[in-house]
Amino acid sequence: MKELLSFIENNQEKHLEQLKEFLKLKSISAEPEYKEEVRRTAMWLKIHLSKIGFEKTQIFETKGHPIVYAEWLGAGNNAKTVLIYGHYDVQPVDPIEEWNTPPFEPTVIDNKLYARGTADDKGQIFAHIKGIEAHFQTYGKLPVNVKLLIEGEEEAGSGNLDEFIANNKDILKCDTVLISDTEWYTFGLPSICYALRGISFVEIKVIGPNRDLHSGSYGGAVDNPIFVLAKMLTKLKDERGKIIIPGFYDDVVKVSEEERKHFKNLPFSEDELKKSIEVEELSGEIDFSVLERIWIRPSIDVNGIKGGYIGEGMKTIIPSEASAKISMRLVPNQNPQDITEKLSKYLISIAPKSVKIIVNPAHGGNPVITPIDSPGIKAAVKALEAAFNKKPVFMREGGSIPVTDTFSKMLGAPPVLMGLGLPDDNIHAPNEKINLENFFGGIKASAVFLSEYSKL
Amino acid sequence: MKELLSFIENNQEKHLEQLKEFLKLKSISAEPEYKEEVRRTAMWLKIHLSKIGFEKTQIFETKGHPIVYAEWLGAGNNAKTVLIYGHYDVQPVDPIEEWNTPPFEPTVIDNKLYARGTADDKGQIFAHIKGIEAHFQTYGKLPVNVKLLIEGEEEAGSGNLDEFIANNKDILKCDTVLISDTEWYTFGLPSICYALRGISFVEIKVIGPNRDLHSGSYGGAVDNPIFVLAKMLTKLKDERGKIIIPGFYDDVVKVSEEERKHFKNLPFSEDELKKSIEVEELSGEIDFSVLERIWIRPSIDVNGIKGGYIGEGMKTIIPSEASAKISMRLVPNQNPQDITEKLSKYLISIAPKSVKIIVNPAHGGNPVITPIDSPGIKAAVKALEAAFNKKPVFMREGGSIPVTDTFSKMLGAPPVLMGLGLPDDNIHAPNEKINLENFFGGIKASAVFLSEYSKL
Repeated sequence: MKELLSFIENNQEKHLEQLKEFLKLKSISAEPEYKEEVRRTAMWLKIHLSKIGFEKTQIFETKGHPIVYAEWLGAGNNAKTVLIYGHYDVQPVDPIEEWNTPPFEPTVIDNKLYARGTADDKGQIFAHIKGIEAHFQTYGKLPVNVKLLIEGEEEAGSGNLDEFIANNKDILKCDTVLISDTEWYTFGLPSICYALRGISFVEIKVIGPNRDLHSGSYGGAVDNPIFVLAKMLTKLKDERGKIIIPGFYDDVVKVSEEERKHFKNLPFSEDELKKSIEVEELSGEIDFSVLERIWIRPSIDVNGIKGGYIGEGMKTIIPSEASAKISMRLVPNQNPQDITEKLSKYLISIAPKSVKIIVNPAHGGNPVITPIDSPGIKAAVKALEAAFNKKPVFMREGGSIPVTDTFSKMLGAPPVLMGLGLPDDNIHAPNEKINLENFFGGIKASAVFLSEYSKL
Repeated sequence: MKELLSFIENNQEKHLEQLKEFLKLKSISAEPEYKEEVRRTAMWLKIHLSKIGFEKTQIFETKGHPIVYAEWLGAGNNAKTVLIYGHYDVQPVDPIEEWNTPPFEPTVIDNKLYARGTADDKGQIFAHIKGIEAHFQTYGKLPVNVKLLIEGEEEAGSGNLDEFIANNKDILKCDTVLISDTEWYTFGLPSICYALRGISFVEIKVIGPNRDLHSGSYGGAVDNPIFVLAKMLTKLKDERGKIIIPGFYDDVVKVSEEERKHFKNLPFSEDELKKSIEVEELSGEIDFSVLERIWIRPSIDVNGIKGGYIGEGMKTIIPSEASAKISMRLVPNQNPQDITEKLSKYLISIAPKSVKIIVNPAHGGNPVITPIDSPGIKAAVKALEAAFNKKPVFMREGGSIPVTDTFSKMLGAPPVLMGLGLPDDNIHAPNEKINLENFFGGIKASAVFLSEYSKL
């Protein structure tokens, strides 16, 4: 083990340079104009995986962006198999003007590496790749069979992954799925996440008059689609922060008092949270603590809104239409399809006769919970302790990795969420970064995980 | 008079070609990237005015776009002086994809001329220019002294016009101000508008967290600026369509029952209005008729809203901010500054502690009423009757021409609103047009006006 960790320590500079190369590729999956760049990123990854020692590497085509797959099964039929999942695609970079350094020119400042994808998820998946390489370089082999599945559509909803997994169950067969796409509870406190929220999406368009109208010639007599949309949005939550879509909470599992007590023992400061995001007051369901609102309660947000004239200057119109992107975070046992349907029906029911509305449900993901006494989670505890010299804590996470649910259902393999990010990594926002100690420690944790998991 | 009208009839083709040339110039005043094109339009106009016979033409510089001025004072000191006002700038063309023909390539379809600015206001001001030219060509002179003031910032708020008028009162001295920037009550019914609504603008920005937050990691605990803005917007009007800004109606003059009765005599079909804009239900104050809501009652509209991710695909964020452009239409004797201030104060008072807000008041314009027995309006009645063979009706208008108030205050000259547009001209919207019979008739009306006004 010492040899393995030394190898990793002696190659930090090289690992950082390689990660930068990976980050320079603009693999924005949700924006069609980056399609070719996403493919280039997949090719880069395939070539890199071949170089470091995988015996088989392959690009799987999908209806969307390609999937990169690699395997090394040299440990034999009797050995355990770990499937490591991650994604090489990244979020869009808007608003670009708020970045301090260009999003695709990785820059180290104060031992932190800034670029789109550093934390979500290129940096985290690359730590695993380098952890595997360390085994190859040190021992000429891996302690377990390893399969790598790195998709290119996570930030666009993993629309083709479920089908891919369903069609390739034999290839992907494994004992556990190791994923690093979550973050630590806080700086300096390695964490294992045992539950994730699910997600539902709905886009709504409110259509009023058949064209933009002059607000002087019509104002006062014609319903304004922006007013209508605004009113509909205010009908999604009540004054106590509760979501008022009929049936929304029907399937929410009550969390035990014991678990809620555990959350209370974690260090938490409302003031620090407020300070870090610069708001004077938090919000949400008044009957739950802030951590509970994020971890064990479902939520609803408007991710974007657009309507009328939004350019410079003024344009005195009653706009023809207005639209909003709405997403909901779900908890066990809420079902995304069911929730999407409930919201869609509700929106239609509250729209006034003066407008037409179009409701577009998008992809969703189930909420996930993994037992904390599974072998994978035990190995992760040892790996993080060895890599960061600190016992990890168990936590939940408000975000979603829909694929974790797919793995557990289709492959029967429990997901292990060994995140390497930090809460201030600015994922999905300008100035995304990863702390270099987390990246380098992550390489160690990945390497140790494979060793520890082989023994359990 | 016959000779004059014949000249106009014999030159329609030429007049149309010249108007097309004028319309091709992209004089969008509100968008800074068109600054040079706006100037080129002013130069084109100056040269054209020199050519047709004005003895003096001049470009006046402002802090914004230039003003074009021309005069012919050959009628002498004892003759009356008419100041004709119009604007050569146009509205932005968004959403460009909804235009059937390119906005700056004037196209005749079914005897209608399509292009940005055809009705508002290039086509209307150009009718006056051709009416004047007809006098020069037919009689070698004009029946009255004529001053032409054509500004380039009407669609951006006429920000520098008041100052220009204040500084050039002697140059602009006149007996009446003739303006064609309004529309007929309906197709085939020439109309004189004797009252306009005023306008107030406020832009509001709601600022939540200091960056876009991941909606999974924060959703449920942090106020979403889009939700906050939506809620604030719903607090601007009550269920009966009444605006609930404190003090908003304080200065509204009650309209006489006689005048309201006159409105009832005008042909009006709610069904036709609904059909023309394709809505199933109209909206607004339930205690007033639809015409009254637009003509004699103030209104409030959101002209644009923006927040969060509005590109293709999904971005699961709690956005850092959201903003809206709000405008209000005002009636006598509401004061734009006062109303803007009342709205600004109200918005600040209803914002929750979880966000910061920035309120930016923009320019405004006073509502205007002109007595229908003034000489200018009498001449306009005769001019429209001669040009279109039909007695005109008197109407109000829901839109604003802030400058009418300036003229009446600073020059002591009553404005005469002899509009040539039609309600379906799509002004401020895609596919703006002018009916060619209105354009050609407008040339006659302008020519006759000058003759008739000289006699009164």
